Amino acid sequence: MRADRRRWVAPLVGMAFLFLTGFLVGWFARPSGVQHDHANDSKLLDFLNEIQADNIRQYLRKFTQLPHLAGTEQNLKLAKEIANEWEKFGLDSVELVSYDVLLSYPKPEQPNYISILNQFGNEIFNTSLTEPVPEGYEGVSDIVPPYNAFSAKGQPEGELVYVNYGRTEDFFQLERDMGINCSGKIVIARYGKIFRGNKVKNAILAGAKGIILFSDPADYCAPGVDVYPSGWNLPGRGAQRGNVLNLNGAGDPLTPGYPAKEYTYRAEQDEGVGLPKIPVHPIGYSDAVHLLTNMGGPHPPDSWKGALNISYQIGPGYKGEFSKQIVRMNIYTSNQVTRIYNVIGRIRGAVEPDRYVILGGHRDAWVFGGIDPTSGVAVVHEIARSVGTLVKKGWKPRRTLVFASWDAEEFGLLGSTEWAEENAKILQERAVAYINADSSIEGMYTLRVDCTPSLHTLVYDITKKISSPEPGEETMTLYDSWHKRDNWTNERNAPRISKLGSGSDFEAYFIRLGIAAGRARYTKNTKTERYSSYPVYHSVYETFELVERFYDPSFRRLQAVARVRAGLIFQLSDSQLLPLDCVEYGAALHKYTLNIEAIANRHPDAISRYNVSFDSLLNAVKNFTSAAQAFHQRLNELDRYNPLEMRMVNDQLMHLERAFIDPLGLPGRPFYRHIIFAPSIHNKYAGESFPGIYDALFDIENAPEQDKAWDEVRRQISIATFTVQAAAMVLMPLA
Amino acid sequence: MRADRRRWVAPLVGMAFLFLTGFLVGWFARPSGVQHDHANDSKLLDFLNEIQADNIRQYLRKFTQLPHLAGTEQNLKLAKEIANEWEKFGLDSVELVSYDVLLSYPKPEQPNYISILNQFGNEIFNTSLTEPVPEGYEGVSDIVPPYNAFSAKGQPEGELVYVNYGRTEDFFQLERDMGINCSGKIVIARYGKIFRGNKVKNAILAGAKGIILFSDPADYCAPGVDVYPSGWNLPGRGAQRGNVLNLNGAGDPLTPGYPAKEYTYRAEQDEGVGLPKIPVHPIGYSDAVHLLTNMGGPHPPDSWKGALNISYQIGPGYKGEFSKQIVRMNIYTSNQVTRIYNVIGRIRGAVEPDRYVILGGHRDAWVFGGIDPTSGVAVVHEIARSVGTLVKKGWKPRRTLVFASWDAEEFGLLGSTEWAEENAKILQERAVAYINADSSIEGMYTLRVDCTPSLHTLVYDITKKISSPEPGEETMTLYDSWHKRDNWTNERNAPRISKLGSGSDFEAYFIRLGIAAGRARYTKNTKTERYSSYPVYHSVYETFELVERFYDPSFRRLQAVARVRAGLIFQLSDSQLLPLDCVEYGAALHKYTLNIEAIANRHPDAISRYNVSFDSLLNAVKNFTSAAQAFHQRLNELDRYNPLEMRMVNDQLMHLERAFIDPLGLPGRPFYRHIIFAPSIHNKYAGESFPGIYDALFDIENAPEQDKAWDEVRRQISIATFTVQAAAMVLMPLA
Repeated sequence: MRADRRRWVAPLVGMAFLFLTGFLVGWFARPSGVQHDHANDSKLLDFLNEIQADNIRQYLRKFTQLPHLAGTEQNLKLAKEIANEWEKFGLDSVELVSYDVLLSYPKPEQPNYISILNQFGNEIFNTSLTEPVPEGYEGVSDIVPPYNAFSAKGQPEGELVYVNYGRTEDFFQLERDMGINCSGKIVIARYGKIFRGNKVKNAILAGAKGIILFSDPADYCAPGVDVYPSGWNLPGRGAQRGNVLNLNGAGDPLTPGYPAKEYTYRAEQDEGVGLPKIPVHPIGYSDAVHLLTNMGGPHPPDSWKGALNISYQIGPGYKGEFSKQIVRMNIYTSNQVTRIYNVIGRIRGAVEPDRYVILGGHRDAWVFGGIDPTSGVAVVHEIARSVGTLVKKGWKPRRTLVFASWDAEEFGLLGSTEWAEENAKILQERAVAYINADSSIEGMYTLRVDCTPSLHTLVYDITKKISSPEPGEETMTLYDSWHKRDNWTNERNAPRISKLGSGSDFEAYFIRLGIAAGRARYTKNTKTERYSSYPVYHSVYETFELVERFYDPSFRRLQAVARVRAGLIFQLSDSQLLPLDCVEYGAALHKYTLNIEAIANRHPDAISRYNVSFDSLLNAVKNFTSAAQAFHQRLNELDRYNPLEMRMVNDQLMHLERAFIDPLGLPGRPFYRHIIFAPSIHNKYAGESFPGIYDALFDIENAPEQDKAWDEVRRQISIATFTVQAAAMVLMPLA
Repeated sequence: MRADRRRWVAPLVGMAFLFLTGFLVGWFARPSGVQHDHANDSKLLDFLNEIQADNIRQYLRKFTQLPHLAGTEQNLKLAKEIANEWEKFGLDSVELVSYDVLLSYPKPEQPNYISILNQFGNEIFNTSLTEPVPEGYEGVSDIVPPYNAFSAKGQPEGELVYVNYGRTEDFFQLERDMGINCSGKIVIARYGKIFRGNKVKNAILAGAKGIILFSDPADYCAPGVDVYPSGWNLPGRGAQRGNVLNLNGAGDPLTPGYPAKEYTYRAEQDEGVGLPKIPVHPIGYSDAVHLLTNMGGPHPPDSWKGALNISYQIGPGYKGEFSKQIVRMNIYTSNQVTRIYNVIGRIRGAVEPDRYVILGGHRDAWVFGGIDPTSGVAVVHEIARSVGTLVKKGWKPRRTLVFASWDAEEFGLLGSTEWAEENAKILQERAVAYINADSSIEGMYTLRVDCTPSLHTLVYDITKKISSPEPGEETMTLYDSWHKRDNWTNERNAPRISKLGSGSDFEAYFIRLGIAAGRARYTKNTKTERYSSYPVYHSVYETFELVERFYDPSFRRLQAVARVRAGLIFQLSDSQLLPLDCVEYGAALHKYTLNIEAIANRHPDAISRYNVSFDSLLNAVKNFTSAAQAFHQRLNELDRYNPLEMRMVNDQLMHLERAFIDPLGLPGRPFYRHIIFAPSIHNKYAGESFPGIYDALFDIENAPEQDKAWDEVRRQISIATFTVQAAAMVLMPLA
């Protein structure tokens, strides 16, 4: 028996071994429904390395030969060219999506200008009709002269009043401290500090019948720098184009809330959202000197003085022998419904095709768009080419990547907003993140990032994988280079990241729909360089040569920016677990709450009289932070091989930003729905945290009824408390 | 060599066989991450069979011993009792969730009544202060007398005007055809046809300073039936309680849009949403006779005459020797912020805990709530017990089941709306369906179902699995019994299913949040029984005995209703593929479009003059239907073993209903956001399809400016077109 047994043992063991081997091979060979994380460092680095400075240079060159004003044949041609190339790069689908929106153009046969009239009503000075065209572009037709899109038509005449930057506080100072009434006057404001549309709104509220915007050298010339083409400063006859709408996120003024398709109902043109009721016109400082010299009235405080060799007297009107002179604006700009085209390209997600990561930037330019937007367009193009290269090698992102080339951004973010409106219901359920790609550079100093707090950590991670573009920093990471130049605060040892404001195409995605969003570009040293944006912004001098000669001769800065944007969309679309950091959001909310409380505490008596307390909000923020910490804790115990578990957790992460959206919107601004972030009422460019509370507190001491004003503060605190609390619930354990 | 080979073949084949066997065992032994469909017919039938008529009888008996008015100690006690039992039944978690909302009660020490005053101002007749308490309940305290919650306080005096049902068309007829002005008068309207809050609103618009509501026997007594307790008709001294708010979905009047938590900002009480500015009071027909007899003025058309033995003259005031008499209302009812309690129970989904199917019904009753709501409460209780039985045997639903016992429905759907507000962000992303469970019975004839079109097919499927409760139909299905009694139309051979209106707790879930919703109950024969709701509705005579003696002695009708509700939540929570039918939604949209077009076509001249066309909407509906058909086609090719594919398809199905929500809401009704379904402006109980267009067309011939009125029609068609188009996109192939 024993021998018999032994005789059988070896074959049995062998057979068992074979069976077991088979079993194990079968076990592991079977696809388990689990998608392993495609996103790994080496793939990311392959992708980032694919992005080449020289390609960006070539694309910038190619796309800035001609003007690409929204609504023109040339910009449609460019759309088709880009669509065509994206297809060749290897995107799965590319389409042109059109809308019929309200645009605004000067009349070619009846140019806009401003005159000084003498006592007989004769024009003794007229502003120039065009900017001198830069060398090499002399033969180009269709350069739109400087104008303010959506200006009202009209020929108002009146005394001139100088209103500094035209800010809320400037008009307060003018009316209260200087006792000057702008009613029936034409005001002249210098560009800078705030969005020009806010200046126009303030002028209208002050009763002005026209507003002139000029670029003062104090704001548009860096010291020691030549004017273009010898340097990058604004020439005296250069002027800043730009729209003067107050849309507050409405998109096309005639179809607020809905996409401007053929079937769409349109409001009467005079009932459009945000259209100014007075003429507005921009001029350069060569012309401004003529208008401002000889003005009478009080001498201004130093902070009102620009860099022109004049006294900057306030007015109204002229002094001495010139006192009979008045100013007339001659504005013939007209609005017309015009077809615009977005280019939308997609790479279908391999695992979760119904999750979208969007990289979008505008294509339309005022003229050549050397910086704005083509330094962004060229970067998106290079990213699309690089992704296409990976796709051709067989890679697919886990989630769907959407590339967007928006039209008519310069006319109020129209292309991006209309697309957001048309796709709102789908985006709301499916969009993971929106990365904006407007101008890639506005200075030569360091990186600038504005994003939602949940993206902070990802931004840091990615910039640590990218080299600094600065000469002499070849071995340094972009993160270190950036950190060295712009540390956040004394309290936080990390590069500064700012809040999103508005003024570019992320607006509808972030502030209306609540999609996590961010933007990155190269910037100036804001501590030392006081001019607004960059000197030749929106002038004819924004050329390819401006970038090549001054801003980024090696194109390594644009390359670095491209890599940041590319790294963001790569990680967001391909990481198995969404790289969003909720704990960081909690920390931000805490900081914002302390800030807004500090603002309220400037009124200690009222705070106690009207029972205003931030305790509920602080508590909600505390709950949020605990929920966020517990959520990230649970991530460690997650079964990453369970596709539904991953999906559920990712859904929580995706919906976190959405939870900050209130369908009722902010007071009087139905399309600004984000309770944590919105543009300031006083400056669209600036992002305000807890904007509802902030606006309720702003200038509360002047409120006509203190009871009601403080009631509104309490109401806004309650809404913020609810919203933060509801966002915490999104992160809590399911069911 | 050949022999050698052959010597090896057999063992090799054997080894290969063993390996292969092992491989296959390994392959199939491995859990694949696929969740097989738990929902199968036998499990569903087990569940439905578990539901017993006798248990429902016992629960109804137990829960109707005492009054359970919202905001009272007794209703909190009941909440705790229910929570306690749900836990015992085997639910995973049960909690009480409280809100502090505005309720309204009469003053115990200062009762409400209505007087006739003689010329000296003496009260010569006063209405009764209470209803006679039914036998067996004499010792019960805390029976709230008949009143209209949220009535304004006051003692208005004036001439009486009889306004029939107080509908929009009644006031039109009164003012235009009869030339009677209600300004400064007290109006008296009979209950029925429309929601009482609409009557009050109409009276206010007509300038009345008070409104009396009475139950006419024509509307609250079935012919040949005795009054309670010998029959189920309303006794002469019975009266209908009920709130008279015009909330339009706002929930708590002081915290519209936000949950009424402790931290929540509250409006001043006189600025609450929907509160009437005039006193309102309900009376029975014994009292009404006194007020109506001797009224003067024109004789009414026949359709204005009820069943009392009086002339129903319109007034104003009394005739002949009584012409000096006037009427005074004495109303002291007052509003107060009061704590209410929802009970929320959950069974955690085994596979998708983040998908919710909600079964909710209210618990608060005006008095004993024999029908309203306890015939619903008892049914929910038996469903919870039955589910618990399955859970105790080891079953879990695929998705999370939520059971809700709402408070303060009678005060404006407050408990359900506040919970919807508190959980809006989560529900929006995660809720699959909401099934309402108010009163289970309002008649003895057949089933009545109101639901979203995507639930039609599921309702039919389930009713085919349930037996008819009618005597003599033992072998018939509920579907057949229902079909026999209430065929949809000549065109469609299926039992009738109606649109959802409002008046119960599904409102916030369906019309504000866009969650697929439905309700089912037993009803009367609406073709022959003309009384509104059921005769003793909201009176003290709604007792257990009313149901036991008259409406459902065997409790088999309630059992059938319970099984319909149970079957719905079972299939919705447990089917692998959500049982929602998009093609059916397309068919409904098509029908609604033809309906609304037909209404517009009543104005053929204006249609052509103002260029009003439904082509865009018809096109969108066509696109929707194609998308829906293609979607259901693709379901056949679906890999049901791929959990992510299933999830993505189910997400499309879940979000379909959501796509009909417009965050901007309907004009003037920000919390009614469903573009396809909303309550009629003229009767909250009725559901209107394309309500935006419908309202724009309603009474358009009387619009002050025809241009603007037709502009609004075009705008609403455009919004509907966009919405249907966007919903179609939800069903299109992903990415």
